[in-house]
Amino acid sequence: MPSIQEYQNLFLEYLESSLPNESPENLYEPARYILKLGGKRIRPILTLISTEIFNGKYKEALPAALAIEVFHNFSLVHDDIMDKAPLRRGKETVHEKWNINTAILSGDVMLIWSYELLQMYPPQISYSLIQMFSKIARKVCEGQQLDMDFPNQENVTIDQYMGMIENKTAVLIGCALCVGAIISKANENQIFEIYNIGLELGLAFQLQDDYLDVFGDTNKLGKLIGGDIIENKKTFLHLYAIENSSQKLKNEFIDWIKSSPIKPKEKILAVTSIYRSSGAEKAIKDKIEYFSKSVILKIDNLGLDSSKKELLHGFVNKLVNRDF
Amino acid sequence: MPSIQEYQNLFLEYLESSLPNESPENLYEPARYILKLGGKRIRPILTLISTEIFNGKYKEALPAALAIEVFHNFSLVHDDIMDKAPLRRGKETVHEKWNINTAILSGDVMLIWSYELLQMYPPQISYSLIQMFSKIARKVCEGQQLDMDFPNQENVTIDQYMGMIENKTAVLIGCALCVGAIISKANENQIFEIYNIGLELGLAFQLQDDYLDVFGDTNKLGKLIGGDIIENKKTFLHLYAIENSSQKLKNEFIDWIKSSPIKPKEKILAVTSIYRSSGAEKAIKDKIEYFSKSVILKIDNLGLDSSKKELLHGFVNKLVNRDF
Repeated sequence: MPSIQEYQNLFLEYLESSLPNESPENLYEPARYILKLGGKRIRPILTLISTEIFNGKYKEALPAALAIEVFHNFSLVHDDIMDKAPLRRGKETVHEKWNINTAILSGDVMLIWSYELLQMYPPQISYSLIQMFSKIARKVCEGQQLDMDFPNQENVTIDQYMGMIENKTAVLIGCALCVGAIISKANENQIFEIYNIGLELGLAFQLQDDYLDVFGDTNKLGKLIGGDIIENKKTFLHLYAIENSSQKLKNEFIDWIKSSPIKPKEKILAVTSIYRSSGAEKAIKDKIEYFSKSVILKIDNLGLDSSKKELLHGFVNKLVNRDF
Repeated sequence: MPSIQEYQNLFLEYLESSLPNESPENLYEPARYILKLGGKRIRPILTLISTEIFNGKYKEALPAALAIEVFHNFSLVHDDIMDKAPLRRGKETVHEKWNINTAILSGDVMLIWSYELLQMYPPQISYSLIQMFSKIARKVCEGQQLDMDFPNQENVTIDQYMGMIENKTAVLIGCALCVGAIISKANENQIFEIYNIGLELGLAFQLQDDYLDVFGDTNKLGKLIGGDIIENKKTFLHLYAIENSSQKLKNEFIDWIKSSPIKPKEKILAVTSIYRSSGAEKAIKDKIEYFSKSVILKIDNLGLDSSKKELLHGFVNKLVNRDF
């Protein structure tokens, strides 16, 4: 089996050869731009690996892997408008480089394109792929809506937060793995298991993201830490600290939440310290470990031969430890 | 066979029973709102009629008819953002009533929903429906992009304009008819013919829209006339007048185009008169008649029994004469 790096290269080659060159230019140029912006290509690599794990050929899975990547990038383009994000992977976002209208419409055509890619299979396979994909795509929209609702919502619980990241992030990781299993004609039980592996992997991945935004290393991450704290983003750490701090600590946290953003460094230091003393740091690390272990256990139960198992283990470790 | 009015009622009943009641509310409420805002339901009625014309049962076509209507409304929600339109069917547009983010995301979920509706058929039928639908959906996006590009484009030709309205409006009318034919398992030739009927019907419909915006009756239309003239919109009439006026008339037109919008009534009167004397009015009427006649001829060539033929003739006349 190819290595993770080789799968990535195989995918990038296919992506490059599949970029749309139709007109109108103003519609397709932004789609090419965002797809060439880089990224770790986690989802399509998972599709290729999953295909080979269930005894299919990775080549057959390339259109579906691209569908998942195109869909992911569609959601980035639209989310970046909603979040007013100026940068994506260190470059201008589509709505910044062009404008909001272009970003809306290019996103739309990418969503349609992802369906077209899933139609490059025989009808029965295509039907199964699209059925699963639509369900997931809808959940991703629901997750994004919940994420947008949270800032205006008085009491967000940790359970609601976990539900939001499940929809917004984890289900698409599950979908990426599922797609490979469907193409390889895996049985229903295998499809169910691989989806759940993806779901928990996605949760571990997103919680790790939250953790690193506070406790990560700026040099390693390539971005400043503490962004979520400055924004008062209702992450796992934030919600845990609210729910589990002593009254004194909670009041202190609320004062920082309400504080005007004149002293960002002080705020980051103080809130980080609250995350430590409230037990939020430990809780998120425990949760990441729980999901990671559960993923490894579920992989072991798939009954794969050792080379396949090791490839998947390796990928999970790389992903959770951000070693890409 | 039911009458056009009855088909409309049958569709509205199905629509009402199919509206999403899931959460999050902020995602699905705008989708319900736009779908309940009214409209003539031209596209789904065409799907139902087409299904019965090719000996299928309209009931089978209801999910697909809804898919077309949901897609159409998705495109309205996103287009209204792009056009900064405050009103749609006399009511607030989604981005006005809520906000741009909500309109983007609700539109996205409607696009996904339209695919889900097309999956409510056996795999082979569903595959054919989605294959055709994706092609059309992509063209609609391309048409919208061209429409957005025109104001900044120096020389728009009449051919380019016809290409734009074909993509933005006509192909979806063709698609609505096609969907019925596919569900009724019509043969390839019939599917090809009914698509072309829809395409020309759509062109006649859109040109009639342009015509009525200048020469229509405010009371009958329920909206003020001359909006396109005030906006200097590059419609068929505008482009024909530019291409075919004497130098003197052309200079006069260009002066009005450049004029500041202090005297809207005078501008509408003057440009309307230019549209008359340049031959643009006659040219558009000829073109509408050409497409309408071609549609009727193509319908006659389908070899339908007389009741079906008359129903379709009746619908075409109602549509082109805006007698809904």
